[in-house]
Amino acid sequence: MRVLVLGGDGYLGWPTAMSLSAHGHEVAVADNYLRRQIVTESGSDSLTPILNLPQRAKVWKAVSGRTIDVHLIDLCDYDLVSRVFREFQPEAVVHYGQIPSAPYSMKDRRHAVLTQMNNIENNLNVIFAIVENSPDCHLVKLGTMGEYGCPNIDIEEGFLEIEHKGRTDTLPFPKMPHSWYHASKVADSTNIHFASRVYGLRATDLNQGVVYGVSTDETLLDDGLLTRFDYDEQFGTALNRFCLQAVVGHPLTVYGTGGQTRGFLNIRDTLACVELALLNPADAGEMRVYNQFTESFSIRELAVEVQQAGKELGLEVEIREIENPRSEAQDHYYNPTHTKLLDLGLQPTLLSEDLVTATLSTLMTYRDRAIHDAIAPRTTWR
Amino acid sequence: MRVLVLGGDGYLGWPTAMSLSAHGHEVAVADNYLRRQIVTESGSDSLTPILNLPQRAKVWKAVSGRTIDVHLIDLCDYDLVSRVFREFQPEAVVHYGQIPSAPYSMKDRRHAVLTQMNNIENNLNVIFAIVENSPDCHLVKLGTMGEYGCPNIDIEEGFLEIEHKGRTDTLPFPKMPHSWYHASKVADSTNIHFASRVYGLRATDLNQGVVYGVSTDETLLDDGLLTRFDYDEQFGTALNRFCLQAVVGHPLTVYGTGGQTRGFLNIRDTLACVELALLNPADAGEMRVYNQFTESFSIRELAVEVQQAGKELGLEVEIREIENPRSEAQDHYYNPTHTKLLDLGLQPTLLSEDLVTATLSTLMTYRDRAIHDAIAPRTTWR
Repeated sequence: MRVLVLGGDGYLGWPTAMSLSAHGHEVAVADNYLRRQIVTESGSDSLTPILNLPQRAKVWKAVSGRTIDVHLIDLCDYDLVSRVFREFQPEAVVHYGQIPSAPYSMKDRRHAVLTQMNNIENNLNVIFAIVENSPDCHLVKLGTMGEYGCPNIDIEEGFLEIEHKGRTDTLPFPKMPHSWYHASKVADSTNIHFASRVYGLRATDLNQGVVYGVSTDETLLDDGLLTRFDYDEQFGTALNRFCLQAVVGHPLTVYGTGGQTRGFLNIRDTLACVELALLNPADAGEMRVYNQFTESFSIRELAVEVQQAGKELGLEVEIREIENPRSEAQDHYYNPTHTKLLDLGLQPTLLSEDLVTATLSTLMTYRDRAIHDAIAPRTTWR
Repeated sequence: MRVLVLGGDGYLGWPTAMSLSAHGHEVAVADNYLRRQIVTESGSDSLTPILNLPQRAKVWKAVSGRTIDVHLIDLCDYDLVSRVFREFQPEAVVHYGQIPSAPYSMKDRRHAVLTQMNNIENNLNVIFAIVENSPDCHLVKLGTMGEYGCPNIDIEEGFLEIEHKGRTDTLPFPKMPHSWYHASKVADSTNIHFASRVYGLRATDLNQGVVYGVSTDETLLDDGLLTRFDYDEQFGTALNRFCLQAVVGHPLTVYGTGGQTRGFLNIRDTLACVELALLNPADAGEMRVYNQFTESFSIRELAVEVQQAGKELGLEVEIREIENPRSEAQDHYYNPTHTKLLDLGLQPTLLSEDLVTATLSTLMTYRDRAIHDAIAPRTTWR
């Protein structure tokens, strides 16, 4: 299958591109290094040393014998996006190419506007590039579980059958996003759903949980194939941050009491889920929504898990409750459904002490690269 | 009350500004004439001859003795928006200042992107201008009934109590917008709701139906106070378009069988609803949603109403069913709740043959200004 991976330079985009290439798909990637740029501006950097995209593709070619086409373009530039679609004629697009940080979007007005404008515009461009150039192409879009917020009812996969005053309809699940960033993904979902109804777009919206881990089958083949690993307050996410904090001797920064519960998945499962969606495409005119995570944990549970795994490696790990910089409930109901990807055959890589220990070991290789000033949270929601 | 009216040059913005000024409020308006510009670019024009904003404010001063401050600024320019907030210190903002056309947004990618980028960015700017300069200021935002689409259940006012698997929560009503334009308003609602939860914003989201009519108490005082009247395929809406078509001898363009049902209200009721919302502000941290319309009609019913009123004036009015350029159901359930504004004291001006006859008479004064080429629909949804 010809697959175009947008945001193919990212934490998930690059491993996805390699994995699909390894499995025999014809893969092209597009990216403009915006993520690298804003992480640098924020005073942080990937813990892992990463090559640029053409270099990565060259190493991949040397290691695997397979080609990944590289397009260094801004997805907000429609002429360029459209040209890639015309030339590559993708059968599917995996769209990771967005600013992915809740804290970044909450810094101030400028960051809120940049996040929403960039994400919403480039998603519209992708929709129109498909409709105008490759109408049968399947859009696999990365959304987030954070679109839903924490309602007091079970979260279904995108849609909910509602009975109201004696009548019934199946409607989009109500959304209460956690940040300006999450709200940008809600807008994308609304737009993709509209395009499926009006233009017959085939689309899968993957509402992903928090991804953790640093290694996939392909990143392990050569140091030149490493994916980025963020641990700073803006682009690092809970479990990855705790792992980095453990290896550099920083207290694990639990926000409040750590009672916040979220869905998590291993980076290997992201790759598996995306490929399952590609191999089982949505129908024309259908927008499917999959809740893409494998397990739910409270933040405190994760901190304890990292502390215990650290002990195995002789690390003394302190857990520190700090004032929560976010506006979020610390104790809340959370029971999202996530059966559709399992039904397609997903075999989850569940969190285990061995897995955390392996991650800690990998991070220890690079711990001298950590920028300590970037670790503590500074961005507050209010 | 100090009220800032954004989009104060528009069909509703200008009459709202005058009405609030007449009722003793201190009023400032902001606009950048974007509406005038894109209507001109589309090959159309307001049927009524309208002055520019400083001229209008001058006539209003002469007629009423009252001052309306005019700010000619782009709401996407945050520095200017913020300065107006700092200097005027509004107690309430009425936000009409957006691109308001579904067909315009459906023309092509460029128009979809322009509509969403302009509307979403300027709404974020308004939210931040309030939060950073006048945190107690009440945002009264114009949304649209088209955000909901046509679900098969009763539409509630913004929120819905949902019982699901034995648990209950009150959540945002699910949205299935009719166009890229309507989707921009859905994004605005999501953002305003988020700002109410996180920053304590007080907000009222008025999900307005289709407005009709050309006169208010204030526009009738002097020809220099007329409001704009659009009848073209992009910026004219159903009943207003039919009235213009009747007076120029154009067949009434009913899309399909005309079975589409929508909520409608008189322009005078828009002014009354907005003032009711202002006089009864939302609490800090509350986003209220009011469904702002007074009656539901099918498009065919409206055409027949105009045909009959035309007969009184000696006009021969033909009703013509044309292929529907939109993607929409022609026969569907439609029963939105709209009690909250009535509870606040709204006395609706209901549609009557007299009212249509009066509108037709006013339009006949200006019918030589009609641009016939702008009337027939050209923009299709697919």
